[in-house]
Amino acid sequence: MEETFVPFRGIKNDLRGRLMCYKQDWTGGFRAGFRILAPTTYIFFASAIPVISFGEQLERNTDGVLTAVQTLASTALCGVIHSIIGGQPLLILGVAEPTVIMYTFMFNFAKDIPDLGRDLFLAWTGWVCVWTAGLLFLLSILGACSIINRFTRVAGELFGLLIAMLFMQQAIKGLVEEFRIPHNENPKLTEFIPSWRFANGMFALVLSFGLLLTALRSRKARSWRYGTGSLRSLIADYGVPLMVLVWTAVSYIPAGSVPKGIPRRLFSPNPWSPGAYGNWTVVKDMLNVPVVYIIGAFIPATMIAVLYYFDHSVASQLAQQKEFNLRKPSCYHYDLLLLGFLTLLCGLIGIPPANGVIPQSPMHTKSLATLKHQLLRNRLVATARKSIGKNASLGQLYGNMQEAYQQMQTPLVYQEPSARGLNELKESTVQAATCTGNIDAPLDETLFDIEKEIDDLLPVEVKEQRLSNLLQAIMVGGCVAAMPILKKIPTSVLWGYFAFMAIESLPGNQFWERILLLFTAPSRRYKVLEQQHATFVETVPFKTIAMFTIFQTTYLLVCFGLTWIPIAGVMFPLMIMLLVPVRQYILPKFFKGAHLYDLDAAEYEEAPALPFNLAAETELANGATYAGDGEILDEVITRSRGEFRHTCSPKITSSTATPANDPRSHQSPRLSCSPRLSELKGEISPRASGKGPRSPRNGEPKQSNLGKSPLNPASS
Amino acid sequence: MEETFVPFRGIKNDLRGRLMCYKQDWTGGFRAGFRILAPTTYIFFASAIPVISFGEQLERNTDGVLTAVQTLASTALCGVIHSIIGGQPLLILGVAEPTVIMYTFMFNFAKDIPDLGRDLFLAWTGWVCVWTAGLLFLLSILGACSIINRFTRVAGELFGLLIAMLFMQQAIKGLVEEFRIPHNENPKLTEFIPSWRFANGMFALVLSFGLLLTALRSRKARSWRYGTGSLRSLIADYGVPLMVLVWTAVSYIPAGSVPKGIPRRLFSPNPWSPGAYGNWTVVKDMLNVPVVYIIGAFIPATMIAVLYYFDHSVASQLAQQKEFNLRKPSCYHYDLLLLGFLTLLCGLIGIPPANGVIPQSPMHTKSLATLKHQLLRNRLVATARKSIGKNASLGQLYGNMQEAYQQMQTPLVYQEPSARGLNELKESTVQAATCTGNIDAPLDETLFDIEKEIDDLLPVEVKEQRLSNLLQAIMVGGCVAAMPILKKIPTSVLWGYFAFMAIESLPGNQFWERILLLFTAPSRRYKVLEQQHATFVETVPFKTIAMFTIFQTTYLLVCFGLTWIPIAGVMFPLMIMLLVPVRQYILPKFFKGAHLYDLDAAEYEEAPALPFNLAAETELANGATYAGDGEILDEVITRSRGEFRHTCSPKITSSTATPANDPRSHQSPRLSCSPRLSELKGEISPRASGKGPRSPRNGEPKQSNLGKSPLNPASS
Repeated sequence: MEETFVPFRGIKNDLRGRLMCYKQDWTGGFRAGFRILAPTTYIFFASAIPVISFGEQLERNTDGVLTAVQTLASTALCGVIHSIIGGQPLLILGVAEPTVIMYTFMFNFAKDIPDLGRDLFLAWTGWVCVWTAGLLFLLSILGACSIINRFTRVAGELFGLLIAMLFMQQAIKGLVEEFRIPHNENPKLTEFIPSWRFANGMFALVLSFGLLLTALRSRKARSWRYGTGSLRSLIADYGVPLMVLVWTAVSYIPAGSVPKGIPRRLFSPNPWSPGAYGNWTVVKDMLNVPVVYIIGAFIPATMIAVLYYFDHSVASQLAQQKEFNLRKPSCYHYDLLLLGFLTLLCGLIGIPPANGVIPQSPMHTKSLATLKHQLLRNRLVATARKSIGKNASLGQLYGNMQEAYQQMQTPLVYQEPSARGLNELKESTVQAATCTGNIDAPLDETLFDIEKEIDDLLPVEVKEQRLSNLLQAIMVGGCVAAMPILKKIPTSVLWGYFAFMAIESLPGNQFWERILLLFTAPSRRYKVLEQQHATFVETVPFKTIAMFTIFQTTYLLVCFGLTWIPIAGVMFPLMIMLLVPVRQYILPKFFKGAHLYDLDAAEYEEAPALPFNLAAETELANGATYAGDGEILDEVITRSRGEFRHTCSPKITSSTATPANDPRSHQSPRLSCSPRLSELKGEISPRASGKGPRSPRNGEPKQSNLGKSPLNPASS
Repeated sequence: MEETFVPFRGIKNDLRGRLMCYKQDWTGGFRAGFRILAPTTYIFFASAIPVISFGEQLERNTDGVLTAVQTLASTALCGVIHSIIGGQPLLILGVAEPTVIMYTFMFNFAKDIPDLGRDLFLAWTGWVCVWTAGLLFLLSILGACSIINRFTRVAGELFGLLIAMLFMQQAIKGLVEEFRIPHNENPKLTEFIPSWRFANGMFALVLSFGLLLTALRSRKARSWRYGTGSLRSLIADYGVPLMVLVWTAVSYIPAGSVPKGIPRRLFSPNPWSPGAYGNWTVVKDMLNVPVVYIIGAFIPATMIAVLYYFDHSVASQLAQQKEFNLRKPSCYHYDLLLLGFLTLLCGLIGIPPANGVIPQSPMHTKSLATLKHQLLRNRLVATARKSIGKNASLGQLYGNMQEAYQQMQTPLVYQEPSARGLNELKESTVQAATCTGNIDAPLDETLFDIEKEIDDLLPVEVKEQRLSNLLQAIMVGGCVAAMPILKKIPTSVLWGYFAFMAIESLPGNQFWERILLLFTAPSRRYKVLEQQHATFVETVPFKTIAMFTIFQTTYLLVCFGLTWIPIAGVMFPLMIMLLVPVRQYILPKFFKGAHLYDLDAAEYEEAPALPFNLAAETELANGATYAGDGEILDEVITRSRGEFRHTCSPKITSSTATPANDPRSHQSPRLSCSPRLSELKGEISPRASGKGPRSPRNGEPKQSNLGKSPLNPASS
């Protein structure tokens, strides 16, 4: 992304890029068919459950002025608008914890002031939103998002981990609360006598750990050995909502022998109860706010604006990380502008505004990557099976597969087909086969694992479209009506779900992986290489990694500590923004440039706009009917991580290749003379083909030391 | 084992075989040093906890005549005697569930008869034991154990699975009981009001699942990535007792806010409470039993004798399965004779007799295999490191390692060093290295994973000695004195432990693995090959496997159903013995001979007596000091199963070799020209060297179809 501060230029560029693929954003979604429901449901739950819980928190903190009805309404409204006219459709909007903290602070301030009080609180926040919106417009028009490039991996991942910690904290707090009497309840009730409170707490432990463990397991269902493929897919796709259902059902098992109220369940007024609509007409009260407070609203507004600017951009950034190989352009400037409008709208109708949320946004992208992976694979598997059916040799087989892949991938506008890469792939394949003298032998399917080969060749790609976002937002809206049903969910299941979200957001976070590395026995550090594609383990001395990680951890803990300070706490994003200059000017004084580059490599540059080959997309959608063939492969998607394999960015490619050559890797014969075919897959990955504005190393993927070992002549 | 029914011949043969290695049984144990404490503690817990729980059960069923004090005393007494003068020192003795059922039945019979009643119950059981002992003597002298060879894998594994089901049933029953009022308690107590009962039940769920999950995890600690090697070893070795401790501590956390009695804890009288010694002088009451009941005692005695004959022999058999590569001889006849004496002794002092127990006996062997594995490996790693330090080439390295291994393994008496096997290993290694042209290049340790190579070469071997058995029996005896401490363990932790034992006994049970196979998706069945070394997956059509497994499962369920029938239940071992003629005469009519052989292959033949090379043993013990070097390898022991890898019987060797050649296996390059070195390890395994009375296939390990693939010329 160009770093420009010329007014409006960023917004214009964004609009131009996104408009080009706007139609495809919709057609692509519809072509995926019913399969789009899997990521949709997954994200709907990830989005709705925290919003409901934040709504409960808000209700307690604002004496019932704002409830889960308002947080859900805001999330749904903003979500629908953003999914239709927003820039980056992968970004999920929602009412987030910082907003709740901010509103709590504002309520505590307003309720004690005679001129405002509880009645004018919402009107006053309306003014805060007006100012916030103004500031966001300014930031957006002046191109503040241009500096997003300087938000390196360090800042983004620290923020991600901080959010995970806050979720986990909420889960633990919630569980502890289950043993206590909720603060505005009647302590005389049967369910609050010590024995029932203890019973409730223990029951909560069972339910929340039950949900957490089963949900984590169900996400890995694709790699299970048991059950049919479609059952496994179903569980992997819908396991988490299913588990919420199952554990809610479990919570009713002892219903006969326990008093009502055990276990505790969600509490929220029905949207049709009297007074629940009081806030919608807040705009007519806004002029009743004294002028001094209208002007004073500017102070919280600056804080919220900074918060949203950071939060929204980082959520968007994390949803389009390099590993995902997105091909549609980013849209930071325009999205910030839109966020301004949304904030204004929410303020005027008296609901707390929504912004881009973590970890839901990256979760959304991940789930769409899995979907896309399945569609692509089905197609390639079909091609390969056909070739083998015709007694094709290994050479022919790869030829056919390359053709099929190329057909699906050729970008229409910016990029020529990367013939060079494909030729190299072929050459290497032939070279490898020659080593065993089998290039012309017909292939036997029992000997040749099509699916594994294809999986190794397939880069991570994401089904970029607007439909899943729109649908999930509508479903969140539906929650407002479904409140009586939602109220059956025990709060303890909620805490388990919070812990689940915190844990799900960890894999893929390199900062987290480096923390783990600190605790890894020296003799087992090489395993990180195998599992996490972390090149830095090879290139940076361990001492440097440790120092860098300890610095980052300390910084994280300071930020986490900040959130505990009542009012200043909301400014923790400022601390993280401070990391940007620290990274740029201070860290280079303590760490070598090359090391810093390896540790904090992600430039967060966006993908250039490479629209899909629409024809191929159509075929892909049809390819979904090959599902029967492809299911065998399901496990590979989930092999190394919870969700899917990262295989594509150039750095990552070089490290992916390593495990096969690495003499310490599992199960690969010591004395192999064949290059790992997966080493070559970078060639057909759009990111690795060396076109477009890329990192300086893109053209010449770094050869790892191990790759050059004398034991692996073919790979040098 | 020779099938002989000449009186005393079996006992004589047994005695001759065991006496030869009797001294080594002790020296070997002492030479292992402190490391022997790991399997000892592991087995002590596995032995003591069920015995305590059975004691509690017995106390309820016999109105307090027999308690945990007596079951512990019997287990300790019989254990000490057996470990010192018993034949097979791997066999663990204990009071088992069938004995408890039998005693319950006898008590219910005796208490209602005016001539016996509660007072003469123990005297009468004394007579039952006298008769039982007589029958056991007869069986032993007449060589009844000779037919143990006909107890195929089918019968043994079915019995193992049945015991696992009974343990699991006890765990579930126990947990359900936690929600109810125990039957001879005062229901008016605070802890039995509904709210506290519910709280107690929920707490029990937390504690038992906590124990189960953490204990299962801790057993796999060797393969963890985190922590130092010694910490990981410590956790893997002592994790289960540690977890019992941890969860007992956890159970005290809410002590301040719950009434005494929550959670429920072990209940047993202290051995020094009045009346606890009433039973020891039972012998003087025995003559007061009316003659008709003395004669009538023969009826339960026959049942117990059959039960013990079967139970004891199968426990012994499962503790010395082929996979363990035991080298000291078996001792079925003599052990049965000794069991007769032990039963007599127990009967005369009024305690329930102990017999060989499942799953503790195979657990014992497994834990000793892990120990031996560690000792061997330390030695080989040291050798390899030394060679590499001297810049040796790959060829030299293997030469040195073979030498070191040979030095440790050369049997003294029956077997010549199998030079042929070693040469072949060398040849293949050289051939493989030639393929990459690197045979003479000095090795770089960063490129060559010594530990992995060595692990692939190492067969499963067991540290056969008497010390661990003696120590664990003494520790069980110590439990009688430690009763006040044991009483602090919550019963729910016990139920978790029962479930843990049931689950721990499953891996390695081929019947269980075939049941899982039935639920495995067809496309993933090959994974069984990778993980479980189950050749039958390759050689037997799936339909036949399914039919056989369904037959066996039905049989298992019938046996399980039998245990629910109040009195007949105790005869379930008869049902299992019935499997022997069924297998021999009926099954061959429904299944092809070759298939049956592959599915039910274990001939349960004993290992011929191949005493250890004592000199090498000594060195091995010293090798324990290389621990620092070897720890890096810990993970490999636990790689595929919970406990260790089976790599040695010839059948197993051929399938172990398969995954590397199998094109579907994980991570091994498709086009490999190197033979997997692990294919060759059968050559240096004592079992596979083709000496001694072995299965017909031993001499010529079966080449798998996959091994002949054109892609793997080197392996054909």
